[in-house]
Amino acid sequence: MPLPPDALATARACADVARAAVLPHFRRGVTVDDKSDESPVTLADRSAEQAIRDILSTRHPRHGVLGEEFGRSGMTEGEWCWVVDPIDGTRSFITGRPSFTTLIALLHEGRPVLGVIDQPVTGERWIGVEGEATRYEAGCLPLPAPVVRTRPCPDLAEAELSCTSPDMLAPPSDRRFSGLKHAARRTSWGGDAYAYGLLALGQIDLIAECSMKPWDWAALVPVVTGAGGVITDWAGDPLRLDSDGTVLACGDPAMLHAAVRALSPTETIG
Amino acid sequence: MPLPPDALATARACADVARAAVLPHFRRGVTVDDKSDESPVTLADRSAEQAIRDILSTRHPRHGVLGEEFGRSGMTEGEWCWVVDPIDGTRSFITGRPSFTTLIALLHEGRPVLGVIDQPVTGERWIGVEGEATRYEAGCLPLPAPVVRTRPCPDLAEAELSCTSPDMLAPPSDRRFSGLKHAARRTSWGGDAYAYGLLALGQIDLIAECSMKPWDWAALVPVVTGAGGVITDWAGDPLRLDSDGTVLACGDPAMLHAAVRALSPTETIG
Repeated sequence: MPLPPDALATARACADVARAAVLPHFRRGVTVDDKSDESPVTLADRSAEQAIRDILSTRHPRHGVLGEEFGRSGMTEGEWCWVVDPIDGTRSFITGRPSFTTLIALLHEGRPVLGVIDQPVTGERWIGVEGEATRYEAGCLPLPAPVVRTRPCPDLAEAELSCTSPDMLAPPSDRRFSGLKHAARRTSWGGDAYAYGLLALGQIDLIAECSMKPWDWAALVPVVTGAGGVITDWAGDPLRLDSDGTVLACGDPAMLHAAVRALSPTETIG
Repeated sequence: MPLPPDALATARACADVARAAVLPHFRRGVTVDDKSDESPVTLADRSAEQAIRDILSTRHPRHGVLGEEFGRSGMTEGEWCWVVDPIDGTRSFITGRPSFTTLIALLHEGRPVLGVIDQPVTGERWIGVEGEATRYEAGCLPLPAPVVRTRPCPDLAEAELSCTSPDMLAPPSDRRFSGLKHAARRTSWGGDAYAYGLLALGQIDLIAECSMKPWDWAALVPVVTGAGGVITDWAGDPLRLDSDGTVLACGDPAMLHAAVRALSPTETIG
């Protein structure tokens, strides 16, 4: 199924308006509210998602929209549905770290076929389209055009592992994650969706996270896959809208089996 | 004691050559070696420190130098000593995160009187001089000139806490840190020295870390202090070359007493 002809332009426009909505609030003392799930939210999250929805309802009035802040609208179970997170990594945003991102995904019958990871401050942007090579734009960073390709790492013992926060690892996920952490070479913390962009650039080999909602992972799928990696749940199965919230990304698909085994509950009990 | 007349220019020149040495290796597949303490190191760390040492030995041949990679040279116990970390946050560097920094400090009889925190990729730079207001340069980031000032936060329960990694918190530090974490509002992970720059910009209220060497904290002292904050060990005492490696930074000095109490061993036992 080819993308709707202007889908990529729409996704870029959504990322552009989110940048414009978010930047004036970055490091400017924006008020932080706590949502019912205790995650933080700001005026920047809400105004960016509203700006994205305005574009989508004008350009694609028949498409469904699922967003972190304003939920479902239109036919989210239909053929085409946009899934958006205006600010992924709100904790990073409210502490002034230029590593939060805006995530824009287009799903076809539940499968992510287009994904954008955008960092509004540096201007970095990753674009993934099913069946195509992932693209990366460095924004203001003084970097040469990179090869957007995950790196070989068939051996779990050599892997650079990343996870946003130990606080997302509630029992029994913490013990399962420990199994993976001890099998990997090194672990770094923080990153949110930005870390998946780094995996696509061959900088990180492995990411394991949980408590992830569709708007947290949908845009990552085409970006990671189009760079040569694989992204699944902790059982190694494809991510679906009704997945259990676990996410596992491997730069080298040859590592998937070992990573799933290291994460398995039976592997870490006792 | 005023700074040597060209000390600030020297510190800037050191940060400039470190940028030039580090940038060609960023996201370019640099080989990572493990040091005896299991921390990672690369050619970029070593070549940046060598470039810094070349400048210092030419401009200030009588000053001591203490660096992370090549140790002590000259009179490090003398009146003036430079303390440098060519790449603070090597884990961030080797995973492609533009949040590692170069740290340059000048100590007078063991007290840091000049500190530079430099991020080579974004070009962000913080400059702290004892008795002066801290300065910040945004580099390539499209940000307006900010007020460099910590924010008021007298109440620990309202504090944004930050720590680089749970892995630095070996027992009994983990339990002491837990006491602080539960008393604070929210915790974010990752950051290394960059987080202290964010504290100086009023984005983070509190940082508690341990296993910190002089080259990890010396440059932070003038930056944090010159922005209105306070930086001590976990007992609330000034940092010294023979400190125990614990570091506590509060944006609002009024919070120091409560933070020290929340970190105290007796507070968290039982």
